[in-house]
Amino acid sequence: MTINDYLQREESRFLRELFELLSIPSISTDPDYGPDVERCARWLKDHLEQMGFSTAEVCPTEGHPIVYAEWLEAGEEAPTVLLYGHYDVQPPDPLEEWISPPFKPEVREEKIFARGATDDKGQFFAHLKGLEAWLETTGGLPVNVKILIEGEEEVGSPSLAPWILENADRLACDAVIISDSSMFAPGIPAITYGLRGLSYLELTLEGPDHDLHSGLYGGGVPNPVLELSRMLASLHDEAGRIAIPGFYDAVRPMDPEEREAFGALPFEDEAFREEIGAEGLKGEEGYTTLERLWARPTLDINGIWGGFTGKGAKTVLPARVHAKLSCRLVPDQDPEVIAELVKAHLEAIKPSEVRLKVSFHHGGRPVITDRKGPIVQAATRAFDRVWDEETVFIRGGGSIPVVAHFAEILGAPTVLMGFGLENDRLHSPNEKLNLENYYAGIQTSAYLWEECGK
Amino acid sequence: MTINDYLQREESRFLRELFELLSIPSISTDPDYGPDVERCARWLKDHLEQMGFSTAEVCPTEGHPIVYAEWLEAGEEAPTVLLYGHYDVQPPDPLEEWISPPFKPEVREEKIFARGATDDKGQFFAHLKGLEAWLETTGGLPVNVKILIEGEEEVGSPSLAPWILENADRLACDAVIISDSSMFAPGIPAITYGLRGLSYLELTLEGPDHDLHSGLYGGGVPNPVLELSRMLASLHDEAGRIAIPGFYDAVRPMDPEEREAFGALPFEDEAFREEIGAEGLKGEEGYTTLERLWARPTLDINGIWGGFTGKGAKTVLPARVHAKLSCRLVPDQDPEVIAELVKAHLEAIKPSEVRLKVSFHHGGRPVITDRKGPIVQAATRAFDRVWDEETVFIRGGGSIPVVAHFAEILGAPTVLMGFGLENDRLHSPNEKLNLENYYAGIQTSAYLWEECGK
Repeated sequence: MTINDYLQREESRFLRELFELLSIPSISTDPDYGPDVERCARWLKDHLEQMGFSTAEVCPTEGHPIVYAEWLEAGEEAPTVLLYGHYDVQPPDPLEEWISPPFKPEVREEKIFARGATDDKGQFFAHLKGLEAWLETTGGLPVNVKILIEGEEEVGSPSLAPWILENADRLACDAVIISDSSMFAPGIPAITYGLRGLSYLELTLEGPDHDLHSGLYGGGVPNPVLELSRMLASLHDEAGRIAIPGFYDAVRPMDPEEREAFGALPFEDEAFREEIGAEGLKGEEGYTTLERLWARPTLDINGIWGGFTGKGAKTVLPARVHAKLSCRLVPDQDPEVIAELVKAHLEAIKPSEVRLKVSFHHGGRPVITDRKGPIVQAATRAFDRVWDEETVFIRGGGSIPVVAHFAEILGAPTVLMGFGLENDRLHSPNEKLNLENYYAGIQTSAYLWEECGK
Repeated sequence: MTINDYLQREESRFLRELFELLSIPSISTDPDYGPDVERCARWLKDHLEQMGFSTAEVCPTEGHPIVYAEWLEAGEEAPTVLLYGHYDVQPPDPLEEWISPPFKPEVREEKIFARGATDDKGQFFAHLKGLEAWLETTGGLPVNVKILIEGEEEVGSPSLAPWILENADRLACDAVIISDSSMFAPGIPAITYGLRGLSYLELTLEGPDHDLHSGLYGGGVPNPVLELSRMLASLHDEAGRIAIPGFYDAVRPMDPEEREAFGALPFEDEAFREEIGAEGLKGEEGYTTLERLWARPTLDINGIWGGFTGKGAKTVLPARVHAKLSCRLVPDQDPEVIAELVKAHLEAIKPSEVRLKVSFHHGGRPVITDRKGPIVQAATRAFDRVWDEETVFIRGGGSIPVVAHFAEILGAPTVLMGFGLENDRLHSPNEKLNLENYYAGIQTSAYLWEECGK
């Protein structure tokens, strides 16, 4: 049987198996879901064993376990490729906005709806099915394959870098493959050669040390929500630039060639605006939308809460307000340096009447990889065999910190070849993966191993 | 037996009965507590009947019921006094900050801790016990008494004004007594002759129509939290004045005599700052703290929420942010005019990239009453018989909309004579009423009926 015949024959089982994986609420950020994260890791180990990876194991870490497996029978001459994915997912809130429950996968209009459908269960699982096709039809693989699937990507992968460092010899490889990004557009495959980094902070601003009656005290005491508003309002200038001293110091300017390439991509601001459902777009002056999303740093508020947030009207002066604040970073900004800069600036502009507490969540380094290397070329050929449209070379606005670790610790170049779409609503309610993209991902993966072996 | 002997003998029962009343979670703003509000009304009716008010009844309204009772056997020559109170309470959140549960009253360090201890159950109940002392020891009262206890004060008393209007003849009276305010300081009784009003709004600012991944979209789309911050930051000028056109148009300036009287009151900014636990005080330039609290209008944020507010770090760009915004008003500002001014201004400054929705909660008119009238003089004499310190005449920062209704519909002057203290933490966790103030309130009330009859 040919690989393609096998892929066609097994389609419905491939979907059933993915549904099983998506049904496990492996939410890494919420300690209440710890047992589910653990269960997800064991499910994957069992699945890899059944596929023929007899070495599959669940590796404990300080946090959530890493699933690791390898198949090294292609011989020393053959290249070794490391496949990376993550089996943990984002929390599903706001729950009430989901049409079908986040952990009861459902196909509607040829799309798989579930938390993790595209980020990242559906994407790495497509590679497992591509590998399975080789193993089942030929009894082997064209290259040596190592598989690493972690459970902490959505919380900044705290255990991953130490684990890679500890297992660096075992993980030695010629290249890394990751499918945790998007195609450029429906039908247009993309190789992502750059990613933004991240600095994530949380802050609390306190006025009075307890909630006060807004009638008895209003007008005479500092209101932390108003004070924070004034602080946040000052963090960008009129041109949309971040007004924190030193923030742009390490930013590598875009070269004209890259700006030209971005400009040639089929992208319409108006279509983008309609997709997000806002009244207008907004960003740093002097840059196009794609440049703002891929090659310029940001400062955003991810959440804010304080005072009375229930039904009705409570006449309270809140004691404190909390906010989650994060910056997306571009080469060569350093997450820790930026976090310190932001913290120091907030402390500098804080009015004397209030107290400020700033803590750090996680960070990730921005990366740029070489688009002329052999692994990028192999991935491009695999894409070209499945899709009609030419593969484009882009950067991504999100962060995959592990890419930096692979570069620094293993010295291996990483290829990001996404099977999802930009509108897959990852991190949002009603996350989805188009059925067509799932199956094309499996097909692309099957070709990829062959192209890597050439 | 003298009234004073009776009061002393019954002290412990008076406390037990108040505990019973405080145990009922009559939270008017939360529909889930509807049955408890109803139960509280019935409990009061039964209690008034037992006290000798054979006319006591629970009067249904569109919202929560009003408890009404009267004793009119003092004769036509005797004045008629209406006692007003409210049996509903504020929500207890944040629950985790309570030392003892809000609806399990407890005495610690000579203070009664419970939601409603001072606002307003403990205060109006002191009057009921003052009346009981007359009825039990003399078989009658020195004046005709009407009692009106409502269950919607904390949600702006929507049913009260219509009910007063409908029952205006029955409610006819020479004066109204309300104890829902504070003494000036421990040991210093106060008659409040002015109150601020209120305009309460809620708003939603929406950028994208669904939450977005902050990596994929950050930098290119409007962030509603940042946009709202900029809007809120612009609502006050550098001098702490509200920067909304027309906001101060109807404000009656303070006269020099009143400013002098306020200035003579024993009040220390530093002690006030320590009491609220802030690093500093803040308010409108050119006014003292007491003037800011009593005679100047405000604009505050009472609550704000949007985006991810759970544990950990979710890299989301929130679709929308919500805020509760309220203004305290002074004579002669109109709550509806101010609400419209605020709404129109917010719509005027809203950036074009976001959508704004503003809705109104409730409002209340500011009031000033005559401090030379007979009821104010009677209340002052009652205070003087219980407390060593001279009674002071002040204004209050909070709102008791019913005072405006009594003036407008019944044409009756209202005396506000608080038994609580400014630090009773009303609307906050660990609300309390000092035991001493509860018993002195009962004693003052017993004298009050006598002084009113003179």
